[in-house]
Amino acid sequence: MKLQLAKGVSDTAPEDMISLQRTMDNLRDTFERYGFVPLDTPVIERFDILSAKYAGGAEILKETFKLTDQGGRELGLRYDLTVPFARFVGMNPMLKLPFKRYQMAKVWRDGPIGLGRFREFWQCDADIMGTKKMSADAEILELASNVFSDLNLDILINLNNRKLLNGLLDVLKIKDNKEDVILVLDKLKKVSKQELFAELKTKNVDEDTADKLLDLLGTEGNNNQKLDYLKKIVVSAEGKEGIVELEELFEYLDAYGINNYVLDLSLSRGLNIYTGTIFEITLVDSEIKSTVAAGGRYDKVISQFLSSKNEYPCVGISFGLSRINAASSKKEASSLTEVFVIPIGDDKSVLGVVKKLRDFGLKVETDIMGRNLNKNLNYANSKKIPFVVFVGADELNSGSFKLKNMISGEETNLSIPDISKKIKEE
Amino acid sequence: MKLQLAKGVSDTAPEDMISLQRTMDNLRDTFERYGFVPLDTPVIERFDILSAKYAGGAEILKETFKLTDQGGRELGLRYDLTVPFARFVGMNPMLKLPFKRYQMAKVWRDGPIGLGRFREFWQCDADIMGTKKMSADAEILELASNVFSDLNLDILINLNNRKLLNGLLDVLKIKDNKEDVILVLDKLKKVSKQELFAELKTKNVDEDTADKLLDLLGTEGNNNQKLDYLKKIVVSAEGKEGIVELEELFEYLDAYGINNYVLDLSLSRGLNIYTGTIFEITLVDSEIKSTVAAGGRYDKVISQFLSSKNEYPCVGISFGLSRINAASSKKEASSLTEVFVIPIGDDKSVLGVVKKLRDFGLKVETDIMGRNLNKNLNYANSKKIPFVVFVGADELNSGSFKLKNMISGEETNLSIPDISKKIKEE
Repeated sequence: MKLQLAKGVSDTAPEDMISLQRTMDNLRDTFERYGFVPLDTPVIERFDILSAKYAGGAEILKETFKLTDQGGRELGLRYDLTVPFARFVGMNPMLKLPFKRYQMAKVWRDGPIGLGRFREFWQCDADIMGTKKMSADAEILELASNVFSDLNLDILINLNNRKLLNGLLDVLKIKDNKEDVILVLDKLKKVSKQELFAELKTKNVDEDTADKLLDLLGTEGNNNQKLDYLKKIVVSAEGKEGIVELEELFEYLDAYGINNYVLDLSLSRGLNIYTGTIFEITLVDSEIKSTVAAGGRYDKVISQFLSSKNEYPCVGISFGLSRINAASSKKEASSLTEVFVIPIGDDKSVLGVVKKLRDFGLKVETDIMGRNLNKNLNYANSKKIPFVVFVGADELNSGSFKLKNMISGEETNLSIPDISKKIKEE
Repeated sequence: MKLQLAKGVSDTAPEDMISLQRTMDNLRDTFERYGFVPLDTPVIERFDILSAKYAGGAEILKETFKLTDQGGRELGLRYDLTVPFARFVGMNPMLKLPFKRYQMAKVWRDGPIGLGRFREFWQCDADIMGTKKMSADAEILELASNVFSDLNLDILINLNNRKLLNGLLDVLKIKDNKEDVILVLDKLKKVSKQELFAELKTKNVDEDTADKLLDLLGTEGNNNQKLDYLKKIVVSAEGKEGIVELEELFEYLDAYGINNYVLDLSLSRGLNIYTGTIFEITLVDSEIKSTVAAGGRYDKVISQFLSSKNEYPCVGISFGLSRINAASSKKEASSLTEVFVIPIGDDKSVLGVVKKLRDFGLKVETDIMGRNLNKNLNYANSKKIPFVVFVGADELNSGSFKLKNMISGEETNLSIPDISKKIKEE
């Protein structure tokens, strides 16, 4: 047997897991302050759910890990958290609306691996189901703003609206393959103009029209100037609806005091599920240039997935957990321990002291290896534990213990309650 | 497509997930106060790791979900957290000792399902690797005591030692199949004496010897009386070592002030990995009669698994997360929200108030559905949200808002900071 991991998966060692957990705690705390509740769904889903017509789509299905149970049932590992969310909504028709849930969990895709591409990775979604009002879209963006400000990260929100994008295509009489054209536009910032035009041509958009389209998408000015211009040229009902939605959304964002957003007409998001608001969030002044959160409104997916006549309007956001973690965390120590108790002599008589310190809420370790004084000091040092306490018979008799600050080297003799106080003050 | 879950798996809806998360938070907090650090390992492991000679064993392997990646590699879903832990230890030879890790994560077994038996379920393990000293065994039991006292659950610790059990078999000249005999003894409390004797016979233990064995295991008295008796009759070196370990362990437990343990000679634990201390923890005065945590010392597993000459002594505990959750949690509400802000009129002008309340750390929701006053009150009521605040133009002008306690019906007019204070005091 070779000691080896499956391809494209990884261990998260304690020093990294401590940091990832801290980031997840931050997100969770913010989600809950906004009234989002946790949902857990199984890792294993029936394959016919994962492969349903309006589920993740053909490309994702190719990368789905398949398995069968002992009854021969076809199953698969979930490739996202949206399909399980839709299934849950369908199986729980009595949900109170709005249904605001978050889920932080792993998903699997058996695809090519590479820099930042794994076969097992975390996703972190928050979605609101049950209303078409822009107050929900604004709440999602306000939630995101708060997530990042809590992590001391400055962000820029790039916003657009799919209805408006359709309206712009209407202006140029692009009628066929609208969705396909929009998916091509998603590559605008990634490929050369030549490549883009070539691909648009395959969607029946000639060079002249493509030129005009790029001009439209590149409309300059501040958000209101852009909207004013669009109001003049957009004529289709759908396009106008998109403009109204954006105006409405801006008003809500203003009411929240959010002003770090720009209307980016070239933003299209590479998924055809979106029906209205779309957005991508990037960090300002960070080495991480890629999107750290993104999402939008998808009013039709769940009813299509469920083949239902009921409406399930939704707006949601996905946070890039690993990137956010990389941006927000300094390298953590490999230990959370605040104080290491070193026995001078008998290692049993110190346990009462250890217990008391833990009862004060401190994170405490003591020697369980039977090491000598120096080795224990070395251990505390190597683990970057900030304090040690020395406990021998004299100390136990007097109730006064030597506390050493391992960073400054300072030593003080203190009672247990005072030791606890001092460590908490640091 | 039929909306259906895979067999033996389940969703955890928000009301249950809130409660499960609370239990997991409690456990995690205690683990970290004892210096245990989190480790995360992949759900997918290489099949040759899962099927290695000293991994989970033939029975478990039959229930392992198999899959292959696009490169044709044979993989499987982890069936426990111990094999991944052993693999991690083997792949990270520079780990500082003691290595004290915890992991709370799902595992999968494609076995028969039934009451309390699922195909996807949570495991929660804490293990110490790197020392043979009984101080580690005592720390694991002290950790468990603290986990349960934090949850206000009274426990009884049933203790035994595998070396001592072997020593008792030595007394009766049972030399062959010692491990098998001990595994049969695990059924002592579950089957009739007849059945037990029949099964012992298949392990070459005749009725007379079986009778004597049962007498030995049923030795009565308090812990010290039992030890005193055993010291007189146990003759083999291994058995004597077991007695010394137990005496040592008792001294450490006494130093921690733990006294709710009994030496139960009939305890054998149904796994042949154990080499010393074994224990099972049950709740006192609870409807839940089955074990809520169990574990022991397994000094040889990792070196056997790694085919290594190095020693990897370990002692660990598994907590039964679902049972502990069932025992400790009252039914939670389907919401964590503390206050619902009801707009009187315009729903945008209230957002500043909502934001301020969240900035005070409160969990706040507001209307994003465009509902009227009565519907909003009904919503808050149905979600058992304890407070609502009414916000209209007059309130915004005066800075004084009506706060309603939804349980008592009491209404008071307060400023935002006072509202926050009052809600936190509840």
